Amino acid sequence: MQDQNLKLNHSNITSNFWKRYRDLMANDSIPFQWDMINDNNEVEVTNDPFAAGGSADKSHAIANLKIAAGQVDGEFFGMDFQDTDVYKWLESAAYVLNYAPSAKLQKEADSVVDLIADAQEDDGYLSTMFQIEMPERKFKRLQQSHELYSMGHYIEAGVAYYSVTGNQKALDIAKKMADCIDNHFGTTEDKIPGIPGHPEIELALARLYEATHEQKYLDLAQYFIKQRGQDTEFFEKQNKADGIDRDFFPGLGTIGNRYYFADKPVTEQTDAHGHAVRVLYFCTGLAHVARLTNDKELKDAADRLWQDIIKKQLYITGNVGQTTHGEAFTYDYDLPNDTDYGETCASVAMVFFAKQMLETHMDGQYGDIIEKELFNGALSGIALDGKHYFYVNPLEADPKASRGNQGKNHINTRRSSWFACACCPSNITRLIASVDKYLYEVKDHTILSHQFIANNTSFENGIEIKLDSNYPWDGNIKYTISNPNKTQFKFGIRIPSWTLNSYEVTIAGKSVKTDLIDQILYLPIEDETVEISVQFNMAAHLISTSTLVKDNVGKVAVQRGPIVYCAEESDNASPLWLYKLDSKPAFKYEFQDNLLDGVGVLETNDVKKLEKNSSTDELYTFDKEKVVKKSHLKLIPYYAWANREEGQMTVWLHQS
Amino acid sequence: MQDQNLKLNHSNITSNFWKRYRDLMANDSIPFQWDMINDNNEVEVTNDPFAAGGSADKSHAIANLKIAAGQVDGEFFGMDFQDTDVYKWLESAAYVLNYAPSAKLQKEADSVVDLIADAQEDDGYLSTMFQIEMPERKFKRLQQSHELYSMGHYIEAGVAYYSVTGNQKALDIAKKMADCIDNHFGTTEDKIPGIPGHPEIELALARLYEATHEQKYLDLAQYFIKQRGQDTEFFEKQNKADGIDRDFFPGLGTIGNRYYFADKPVTEQTDAHGHAVRVLYFCTGLAHVARLTNDKELKDAADRLWQDIIKKQLYITGNVGQTTHGEAFTYDYDLPNDTDYGETCASVAMVFFAKQMLETHMDGQYGDIIEKELFNGALSGIALDGKHYFYVNPLEADPKASRGNQGKNHINTRRSSWFACACCPSNITRLIASVDKYLYEVKDHTILSHQFIANNTSFENGIEIKLDSNYPWDGNIKYTISNPNKTQFKFGIRIPSWTLNSYEVTIAGKSVKTDLIDQILYLPIEDETVEISVQFNMAAHLISTSTLVKDNVGKVAVQRGPIVYCAEESDNASPLWLYKLDSKPAFKYEFQDNLLDGVGVLETNDVKKLEKNSSTDELYTFDKEKVVKKSHLKLIPYYAWANREEGQMTVWLHQS
Ligand SMILES: [Zn+2]
Ligand SMILES: [Zn+2]
Repeated sequence: MQDQNLKLNHSNITSNFWKRYRDLMANDSIPFQWDMINDNNEVEVTNDPFAAGGSADKSHAIANLKIAAGQVDGEFFGMDFQDTDVYKWLESAAYVLNYAPSAKLQKEADSVVDLIADAQEDDGYLSTMFQIEMPERKFKRLQQSHELYSMGHYIEAGVAYYSVTGNQKALDIAKKMADCIDNHFGTTEDKIPGIPGHPEIELALARLYEATHEQKYLDLAQYFIKQRGQDTEFFEKQNKADGIDRDFFPGLGTIGNRYYFADKPVTEQTDAHGHAVRVLYFCTGLAHVARLTNDKELKDAADRLWQDIIKKQLYITGNVGQTTHGEAFTYDYDLPNDTDYGETCASVAMVFFAKQMLETHMDGQYGDIIEKELFNGALSGIALDGKHYFYVNPLEADPKASRGNQGKNHINTRRSSWFACACCPSNITRLIASVDKYLYEVKDHTILSHQFIANNTSFENGIEIKLDSNYPWDGNIKYTISNPNKTQFKFGIRIPSWTLNSYEVTIAGKSVKTDLIDQILYLPIEDETVEISVQFNMAAHLISTSTLVKDNVGKVAVQRGPIVYCAEESDNASPLWLYKLDSKPAFKYEFQDNLLDGVGVLETNDVKKLEKNSSTDELYTFDKEKVVKKSHLKLIPYYAWANREEGQMTVWLHQS
Repeated sequence: MQDQNLKLNHSNITSNFWKRYRDLMANDSIPFQWDMINDNNEVEVTNDPFAAGGSADKSHAIANLKIAAGQVDGEFFGMDFQDTDVYKWLESAAYVLNYAPSAKLQKEADSVVDLIADAQEDDGYLSTMFQIEMPERKFKRLQQSHELYSMGHYIEAGVAYYSVTGNQKALDIAKKMADCIDNHFGTTEDKIPGIPGHPEIELALARLYEATHEQKYLDLAQYFIKQRGQDTEFFEKQNKADGIDRDFFPGLGTIGNRYYFADKPVTEQTDAHGHAVRVLYFCTGLAHVARLTNDKELKDAADRLWQDIIKKQLYITGNVGQTTHGEAFTYDYDLPNDTDYGETCASVAMVFFAKQMLETHMDGQYGDIIEKELFNGALSGIALDGKHYFYVNPLEADPKASRGNQGKNHINTRRSSWFACACCPSNITRLIASVDKYLYEVKDHTILSHQFIANNTSFENGIEIKLDSNYPWDGNIKYTISNPNKTQFKFGIRIPSWTLNSYEVTIAGKSVKTDLIDQILYLPIEDETVEISVQFNMAAHLISTSTLVKDNVGKVAVQRGPIVYCAEESDNASPLWLYKLDSKPAFKYEFQDNLLDGVGVLETNDVKKLEKNSSTDELYTFDKEKVVKKSHLKLIPYYAWANREEGQMTVWLHQS
């Protein structure tokens, strides 16, 4: 349980790295997305014709709400979950207002709340496609209707907006929605014993419960968690009753329950499979409900699924979901780099899942994954300009392959402005705008610092923690803890897995020698002022993959601090597959102010390059030794790729 | 032009290797396929649910013809080209009858000819789907109708059956069909200025011309070659007129002309793209017509396309077509091994194309490709039992990947009995049954021996050539030329590319030192009896790929003689990606009588194996050196894979 004596009040991010991104949210991303959802035709849009998610320059999301509200006439346009683009914008705006107050933004957001209230039906229902086009089909095709997914997203937004601005209407809409769902779903005779095709409502209801402490919301969340996979014929029965050939998404009617992670109850699930974002939103709700209800079976299920993903299905960048076919997980140890999917939403969801796990168990592995996503896999989803987005985040890209081989069409090599399925832009936005939520956990008289992003944070009892760092570029972390009431508590510091063998913690110049517990170093605090210095080893590491993974045999990746690096064609003559690192390459690190808005780069001369054949050479040769030459390789952070000229990129490099 | 003085009369294959396969055709494949097309329910069928081409245990192909002939009532079933399964069976039967006379088989084949004649309309038209279901749509949707493809296949069959058995009716049907097409297609006002979506008619008409010497058939073939790509709106216009949403194959209406190799005239085409079998059937007709009409522009086009495929888009096994998306070529130097397609039909078509090129230019490179396909890429399409077939021929396979990653579903790891699109089984059958056609070329007072399959062959002027060899296992080739009329001619011997640097030719014990011309060694012959011994170097070679190909960097393949080898899980503990060949491995060769119906195997101890991680190990590790151990590797011929327990297979192996 959260410790009320130490409860976190407010975090102010001071990190240069994150201030840049958070200013970008306030000044660029949120206004840009506002223009998009309002179909402001003046906004400039650039797109890739093959983009996963479907490139688009039109949203109609606000318009749909206005039509449903009866404010204007018109037809519904978009996905059946088009409303969520508005809700996630609202949620992002809430988080931005928390650190960058703006009367203009708040007015826009208030107006959106008013519009949503107008569009909501008296019974709490809100899903504009059904209201406008097919009211008779409400809750009749849950496999594909996204109604609960949409309302779940509103509930998250409403809770967030209320908690930042105190807008009661925003919370009331959420409660009314949850009540509506509660009235319709359950195992009693008058209700639908159903589940959503796309989980999300579970985590939303758990958040609503934490905001309101109304037990029925937790019970309803628990119902959706436990009901999933109980009746494996539910979707089929609904589809038949609704008309078998009336799919909202052709093909999704017959794809089978496995795809929906609804093939068996979660207590029997052992591995992540099917649509990645669905699985991960579900797991977030699962871990949340398991903790709130202290349900051991559910906790074990969450642990099992976490372990499967982390140990068997996670890309080194934190990206998950190996295939474009159904945007899905595939199978254990299948990690192809040039056909992977790694949806931005899936990485964002990994942060949500990890946070719930961390609130359950104080264990460094969860903070590791949050860090991995924040600095790599999730962050790659947004361009440095804040206005272009990746839906898919590959570990290897080649514009020729993306255009020439249809199995790689989904690997876009330029970020797009917008998508027909626009889930990703607002998801990475809400994550960045709320990064302050991912710094500390407070539990059992302990404050755990698990991220090293510079910040000033205040807690109850007058405790203030100032974290100074130039993270992720520098490994020196300095904590200044001000504890005016001399509260006794434990201060935990996660030691990242990449520096576990080499770190130093000093208090007043004295080195602390304490065994870690689950990757966490605990220090007892009781003085009025405590200064702690932490030094992580920032040497570049070579990463190898389990030999159970086919695609990385003979290859290594390079990581420095939390940052996974990649080679880009802008810095290295293509093809990138010709470079071969020596067995123990020395890397020179340098922070380059003028490159990619300021990044630390790694360079090495300990690399060979295979001779590039010419097009007049034979395709195959017999018994010839390959010619190699000394070469040079320059690596940049993975998150920053695809911000210059279009070209090849690779995270994994051949090694001798 | 073929030299009438030296014209080839008859080849009798004496090779053990090919006799086994040809007996298999006569005793197993042809009877099995007869049962299939006749829907004999007693036939045993085994299938893979994911098989490319669609697994099937029903054909209905003979039944469709009977319905069209009015002999029975019923509905059409199958693809719009279902008829071709009968025609290719008939063509295969013709070739089998040529070396294994059988009254029973000939009776069945005669009955098929009678049935086809019955089904053919008075004007020569024959395509049962249209006759039975939609006579009003004849020739109205050529992009997808396969009418010309189907009739082309009959024409090939009719010519073959007539030439072996003298059945005049078989030829007459073909001529009547060609006349029908001639009456309907062309650029004069009363005709359709159209082309087929799937080429095949071009090569068929060229063959019919060679059988009949009727100029109009050559003119018609030339028309289809030259018309392709002239009117890029032809398909669209027809589809619109026929009804835009009446596609026979959903999605093929809007896929664009590039897919059909109809995006520009062939004289402007520079690379193979789109559906592989379409391109290659077209190229076969192109090279044939170019030669017959001595058209330099067309010859240049054939050369260009040949060079693009051979130098930039050919797998080492001879397989072509890199992607399952549209069964298509992708782009130059894109040769992924674990997602490739390599349709059996495409390899068969490569043999056809190569043969036409070889008849145009006496150049060893064409014989090289025929050999490559006969012993590798095409042959892999049929199981050792003659009754199971691959549609797709990958260079790397893993049952787990095929089942677990949808992007690899098309990579079947067991051959299937039959397919809904059953093009491949009868294609490999007709190739094996006609392998005697691919031994010699006769031109300009020259007999070229380009394949080293043991045979006795008679030519005009009483010349007989006896080729003794234990090819492909042994590199000693012995020619005994009997030339009773002391005809003066040149005897050419192709020196395969894999032995170019190391071979010996001796006549009467004296070594011949003659420069090769285009990979061919020419010997003047005038004596009554000439004995020539040829010794090829049968050492195992390590093959490397141009470094412009991403997927084979750091890898080698192994070839001995014409045979490309692979590692299979039956012989080597999985995962196969853990093996790493030393830089210069020594291979021990042994012929094993009892393995896979007799194969030469290669084994080496010059190989390391990476330690296999366990599932409790971390997925990623920092700065750890990989542990390797001395190991052992056993390789089998690629064509023989997937004839034992299901498991992994790979052609390309990691190398230090
Ligand atoms: Zn998304
Ligand atoms: Zn085929």
